[in-house]
Amino acid sequence: MDPADPRLDDFRDLNSVDRRPDLPSGKGLVIAEGVLVVQRMLASRFTPRALLGTDRRLGELAADLADVDVPYYRAGAEVMAQAIGFHLNRGVLAAAPRPPELSVAEVLDGARTVAVLEGVNDHENLGSIFRNAAGLDVDAVLFGTGCADPLYRRAVRVSMGHALLVPYAWAPSWPRELDTLRDNGFRVLAMTPNPAADTLAAAMSGLVGDKVAILVGAEGPGLAEHTMRAADVRVRIPMARGTDSLNVATAAALAFYERARLA
Amino acid sequence: MDPADPRLDDFRDLNSVDRRPDLPSGKGLVIAEGVLVVQRMLASRFTPRALLGTDRRLGELAADLADVDVPYYRAGAEVMAQAIGFHLNRGVLAAAPRPPELSVAEVLDGARTVAVLEGVNDHENLGSIFRNAAGLDVDAVLFGTGCADPLYRRAVRVSMGHALLVPYAWAPSWPRELDTLRDNGFRVLAMTPNPAADTLAAAMSGLVGDKVAILVGAEGPGLAEHTMRAADVRVRIPMARGTDSLNVATAAALAFYERARLA
Repeated sequence: MDPADPRLDDFRDLNSVDRRPDLPSGKGLVIAEGVLVVQRMLASRFTPRALLGTDRRLGELAADLADVDVPYYRAGAEVMAQAIGFHLNRGVLAAAPRPPELSVAEVLDGARTVAVLEGVNDHENLGSIFRNAAGLDVDAVLFGTGCADPLYRRAVRVSMGHALLVPYAWAPSWPRELDTLRDNGFRVLAMTPNPAADTLAAAMSGLVGDKVAILVGAEGPGLAEHTMRAADVRVRIPMARGTDSLNVATAAALAFYERARLA
Repeated sequence: MDPADPRLDDFRDLNSVDRRPDLPSGKGLVIAEGVLVVQRMLASRFTPRALLGTDRRLGELAADLADVDVPYYRAGAEVMAQAIGFHLNRGVLAAAPRPPELSVAEVLDGARTVAVLEGVNDHENLGSIFRNAAGLDVDAVLFGTGCADPLYRRAVRVSMGHALLVPYAWAPSWPRELDTLRDNGFRVLAMTPNPAADTLAAAMSGLVGDKVAILVGAEGPGLAEHTMRAADVRVRIPMARGTDSLNVATAAALAFYERARLA
């Protein structure tokens, strides 16, 4: 296959800024990389419109693609690298148009545990949070202000594709959306390093059977004070002496774990 | 200051392979980047032999450097970038010679919780594990086969300097070193995704008051089967349906957290 073939345009120059799905200037395509993430895209609300991969990786996807009406293109690793602009050792890509965003009401429907993020603007942390949410039984993610887009390629990759599967929505007003959570029966927990806050274990053990929203702020600044005040409970991870903080995705994982243990 | 000044040689071309402290061809210098990590180096067994920084960052370190006999060089961001080979937005560096390694006996002395790693060859994961160990009350780290070096610059940075503070040792024989742990009164827990294993919470609640070694393998392959067999207990993180694994540093953090909660 010729790397300049226009059928590969959906996969061209993926490192270029105008390919980003999260920028107004971007082409809006969501990219899945690797067999596992492509499988998760096929299981998600993101419907791929084309695949590009090596013989071997497309072969591994044969069963997944059997009933799917999507064109796929075979190419060697060199041709793929020339089209996409770098060497991809995962060997297969899928591109899906960005579907309409879900509403807050849609993602809260049936949810018992949601993660609520403020100021998480690092794509790697965001991807990790989605992976942790999926693994530790969080039903949905809600974005307050200042968050990065979970559909950016790196976030999707780090999430192992769970950014495509865990439903998320953008809060139309912030932090007022926390009232919507309360109106839907959620107790809102704000994570803080403040030593006066309740421990995770104490807070979660008081909420068995309740719906819970876990509010996490960016590493460094943490949650804004007016956001913190809008929460019902402040909770902390007990930290060893001489240490101050954990990575934001790790802190979120501990809260998700404790919630799953005591839900 | 002239970027070619030989007094800056300890900081020259830091991205070049022969600067790595973890390769036989490397110069063996351990590099701390940023005010916080330099402070942690100053508090550690790694004694810096020179610092290089901007006026502002060296000013922030004035109190830490007051009683320390180490030369430090002031330079603008441009001169620093020319010497080290890239732009460093943390603004200050310290370089320490690599001290002799600690022995297993030294790091186990007085320890009640240790992390034991096998095949963790990713510097970022390794750095995260040290950060998590420090924050969640793990006393020491023991390396089995196949682990990356925690003194590589990226690992030190991701660890927030805790790779310099949490004592670690390399197991001289593996997995036989697990017997040394047992001889020292440790119960050895092996992390596994196997659904037949005990949950973290169940396993840790049976070990209150005991010394515990938490054995973690690389993401993907996990622990080798003969390593798993040499452990006392197999433990798992309860995972949501349709998900298989967490990042290795995240999985370790959950085990450290559960141990700290129930120690």
